[in-house]
Amino acid sequence: MADAYDDLLDRYERINALQDGSGVLYWDQQVMMPEGGTPARSEQLSALSAVTHEQLTADETERLLDAAEDEDLTDEQAAVVRELRREYDRATQVPERLVEEHSRLQSEAQDDWREAKADDDFSAFEPILSDLLDLRVERAEHIDPDRDPYEVMFEDREPYLELDTVERIFEELKDGLVPLIDDIRASEEIPDAFDGTFDVDAQESLSRDVLDLLDYDWDRGRLDTSAHPFMSGNQFDARITTRFDETDLLGAVSSTVHEFGHATYALGLRDDAYGSPLGQPRSSGVHESQSRFWENHVGRTREFWELVLPTVKDRFPQVSDVTPEEAYRTANRIESGSLIRTEADELTYHMHIILRSEIEREFVSGDLAVSEIPAAWDDKMERYLGVRPDSDSEGCLQDIHWTGGFASFQNYTVGSVLAAQLWATIEEELDDPRGLIAAGDFGPIRDWLTENVHRHGSRYTTDELIREATGEDLTADYFLDYAEEKFGEIYGL
Amino acid sequence: MADAYDDLLDRYERINALQDGSGVLYWDQQVMMPEGGTPARSEQLSALSAVTHEQLTADETERLLDAAEDEDLTDEQAAVVRELRREYDRATQVPERLVEEHSRLQSEAQDDWREAKADDDFSAFEPILSDLLDLRVERAEHIDPDRDPYEVMFEDREPYLELDTVERIFEELKDGLVPLIDDIRASEEIPDAFDGTFDVDAQESLSRDVLDLLDYDWDRGRLDTSAHPFMSGNQFDARITTRFDETDLLGAVSSTVHEFGHATYALGLRDDAYGSPLGQPRSSGVHESQSRFWENHVGRTREFWELVLPTVKDRFPQVSDVTPEEAYRTANRIESGSLIRTEADELTYHMHIILRSEIEREFVSGDLAVSEIPAAWDDKMERYLGVRPDSDSEGCLQDIHWTGGFASFQNYTVGSVLAAQLWATIEEELDDPRGLIAAGDFGPIRDWLTENVHRHGSRYTTDELIREATGEDLTADYFLDYAEEKFGEIYGL
Repeated sequence: MADAYDDLLDRYERINALQDGSGVLYWDQQVMMPEGGTPARSEQLSALSAVTHEQLTADETERLLDAAEDEDLTDEQAAVVRELRREYDRATQVPERLVEEHSRLQSEAQDDWREAKADDDFSAFEPILSDLLDLRVERAEHIDPDRDPYEVMFEDREPYLELDTVERIFEELKDGLVPLIDDIRASEEIPDAFDGTFDVDAQESLSRDVLDLLDYDWDRGRLDTSAHPFMSGNQFDARITTRFDETDLLGAVSSTVHEFGHATYALGLRDDAYGSPLGQPRSSGVHESQSRFWENHVGRTREFWELVLPTVKDRFPQVSDVTPEEAYRTANRIESGSLIRTEADELTYHMHIILRSEIEREFVSGDLAVSEIPAAWDDKMERYLGVRPDSDSEGCLQDIHWTGGFASFQNYTVGSVLAAQLWATIEEELDDPRGLIAAGDFGPIRDWLTENVHRHGSRYTTDELIREATGEDLTADYFLDYAEEKFGEIYGL
Repeated sequence: MADAYDDLLDRYERINALQDGSGVLYWDQQVMMPEGGTPARSEQLSALSAVTHEQLTADETERLLDAAEDEDLTDEQAAVVRELRREYDRATQVPERLVEEHSRLQSEAQDDWREAKADDDFSAFEPILSDLLDLRVERAEHIDPDRDPYEVMFEDREPYLELDTVERIFEELKDGLVPLIDDIRASEEIPDAFDGTFDVDAQESLSRDVLDLLDYDWDRGRLDTSAHPFMSGNQFDARITTRFDETDLLGAVSSTVHEFGHATYALGLRDDAYGSPLGQPRSSGVHESQSRFWENHVGRTREFWELVLPTVKDRFPQVSDVTPEEAYRTANRIESGSLIRTEADELTYHMHIILRSEIEREFVSGDLAVSEIPAAWDDKMERYLGVRPDSDSEGCLQDIHWTGGFASFQNYTVGSVLAAQLWATIEEELDDPRGLIAAGDFGPIRDWLTENVHRHGSRYTTDELIREATGEDLTADYFLDYAEEKFGEIYGL
C-alpha cells in the first residue's frame, strides 16, 4: 500500500510541470521574445514562481510526506520521498520574509553589479554584496544551524556530495594543473588553423551538421541562438542554443557539442518517469559531466576531428588545406593568459573555478572582508595563472553569478572531473570507443551513459550514482591523467 | 476606500499572468516545439490550468469579491469586479477534476486530429471528439443546469451578447447572401491575376514588407509560420503567425493582414492595465472585428492594392504586368465552390460558419450522433454552397477548432458584421479614410479604433461597447450594404 505516496507523487508531478513551464517561458524570453515583452513576462514568471512555491510548501505536502514516510515503499519510491522531503524542508525552513527580501536584493544587486562593472568600481557593488552575504548566511542557518553555512549553500546545487570531497579534489587539481599549465606556457604556441572570418549562417548550418553527425534527436529538440548558450527542457523536448562569432569557428562548434551533451542527459531520462525525481537529472555537477564529456572527451579528440573536418570544409572551403591533426591541435590550444572564465580553455578554466571557490569560502566564513575581495582575487590570479587583472571589471566583477548565489561554480569542475572518470570507465567497458568516434558511431557511447547515468534520474544520491556508474568515488586522478597525457603529447612535454 | 478591491485586483493579475503563461506555452507548441514534446507540454498546460483554476476558485477570491462588491467603487472598478465575478462564478461551478481532464484531453485531441486529418479518417478523431463533447456538456450543465448547454458554451467566448441576437443576424445574412452568391455564381468569373507559383521565402519577406507598411511594432511582436495562423499575446508582446502556399500569394498576404488586425487590438490595450480586465480584449467576436476590419475593409480595397502592389512586384517581378485594378479584383474573387473555410472568400465564408453553427447545435443537443457529423456536413455543404467534399479532411476534419471548444465559430461572422459597422462609423467620423489607405497613412484609422474599441478593454459589456463605438446595436445592415455595393460593382450586378 502506498496511497499517500501516490498522492505525493501526483502533487510533485504538478510542481515539476509548473517548473518546466517556467523553463519554457525562460527559454522563450532568451530566444524568441520581442524586446518589449519584458514587463508581461516578468509578471508571468513571478506568478508561476509564487504558485509553485505555494504548492510545494502547502500543509498538504507535509501531510503526504509524513504519511508516505510511514508506508512500505520500494527502493525507488523511497528515493522519490527522500528527494521530495529534501525540497520541502529547504523550501519551508526559510521564513517567507527572508525569501522575499532576498529576491528583492538579488534584483537590485544585478543593477548594482552592472553599474559597478561598467564603472570598474568594486566599492559600488560591495555594500549590496555584504547584504547578500548576511542574508544568505542567515538563510543557511535556518536550513541547518549546526553546519558550516557554505556547505549548506554548496548543497543547494550539489546535494549529497561532500564539499570536503570537492575541496580535496580541488587541492589535487591545483597540484597537478599549476605545473602543467606552467610547462605549457613555456612551450611553443600552437598556431590557429582556423584563423579568419566565418559566415554566421554557414556556421549555423555547420552546427546542425555536427548535431546530425552526433545523431541529435530533432524530433525532441531544436537549435537556436541566444546571448549565452544553454540547454532547456526535459526527456521529451531538450532544446539547445548556441552563439556564433564571426572570428571564432571552433567556439560555436564546441558550444554546440557542449549543449548537445546536456541534451543527451535530458533525453536519456525515463519517459515514464517524467515529473518524478526518477525522471529528473541528479544535479548540476552531474549535468555538467555530460556536457563536458561530449565537449572534451568526444569533441576534442583526434578521431572527432577526422570525422568532422570534411563537413567543416564543405561549409567553409576557405579551410580546405587544414589537416585533421591541425584541427585537433587548434581545438586543444591552451591560452594561459586569459583573465576571463567564460573565455578560458579546458585546463585554465579550473583555476578560475578554484580561485572563486577559495575566495567564497573565505568571505562566507568571515576570514576575508568583502572589501578585500579584489586584492585577494588579483593575487590568486597571479599565483595560479600568472596574470594579474588591470581592473575589477576583468577581475572579481567579471561574473554576474554572485548576485544569484554563492557556491555555484564548483559544479563546473566537478563536471569535468566526473566526465574524465566516466570516459576512463567507458574505455574499460567498451571495445575501442575512440574507433567508434572516428566511425561516427556514437550509439554505444551514448547508450552506455544512458544506462549508467541518465536512466537513474535522481534515484541515487550523487555519490552513489558516481560509484554505481564508475565503481569508485569521485577522484581527480582520471582528469589529471587525461590532461597530462593529452596536453603532454600535444605540447611535447 | 477600496481595500478589498485592491487585493482582488492583485489576485486577478496573478491569475491573468498564469493564463498568459499558458498562452506562451500554447504558442510555443504550435510554432516552435519539436513534435516529441507533446507529453511534457500536456502536463505543463494541465498543471497550469489546474493551479489557475485553484487560484480563481479559492475561498479567498470569493471573500474578496463579496467585500469589494460592498465597497464604494468607481465605474472602472465596478466593471473590473463585474468581470471577475463572472469568471469566478463560471469557474466555481465546474469541478476541478473536469477542468484538468478537459485540458489533458484537448492536448491529446490536437494530435489525434492531426493524424486523422492526415489519414483522412474521421473515425480516428471520433472517440476523442465524443469524449470532449460529453465533458463539455457536463461542464455547461454545471455552469447553468437550466439553460441550453450550447448557449452556455457560446457565452464562454462571447459574454453579454445573446445567442438569439446572433442567430437572428445569421438569418438576415442567409437572406441577403444566398441570392447575392447565386448572382455572382451566374456572372463571369474574375481572372486570377496572380496565377503561378511563388517562392515561399519571398512570400515571407513580402509578409514582413506588408507588416512594415502597416507599421507593425516589431519591438512588441514577431512573425512566424504555423499550420493555422493565429495571434498570441498581450499589449507588450503580440505575435502573429501566418502560413505560405506556393500557389496562393494573396492567401498569405490576407492572412498576415488579418492577424495584424488581431495584434492591433492587443497592442492597443492599456499598458498600465496589464493583468486587469481593463487591459484585456472584450471578447473573441470583438477581436475578430479587428482582424476582419484590417483584412477586408483595409486589405481588400482598391486603395490598399494601389499602395501595396509595387512592393509585391519588388518581391515577385513575375507579376510586373498586373494592374492595381486587376489585383483588387483578384483579391475580391468569390469562389463559391471552395470546400475549405480558411480558404473561403469574404462572402461564402459566412455560409461555412452558419453550417458549423447549425451542426454544432445539433450534435450538442444530441439530435446528431458524432458519427453522423461527416454525412451531415457534406449534405449541408451541398445545400448551401453547391459543393460536396470528397473526403473528411476537406470536410468536417478541416478545422482544429473543435479540439479547443464548440460554439467558437459564430464570432467570426459577428466579427465581420461588426467590422462593417465600425467602418461605416469611421467613414462618418474621419475625413477620407480611403485616401489615408492609399497614402499608407494608417495612423488615424488605427488611432480611432484604439480610442473607441481597444482602450476600453473589458470596461464595457459587448453590447455597450458596440453602442459606445458605433452609436447603435449590432446589425447585419452595414455588412449587407457593403457586400452588395462592393461585389455588385465588381461583378457588374
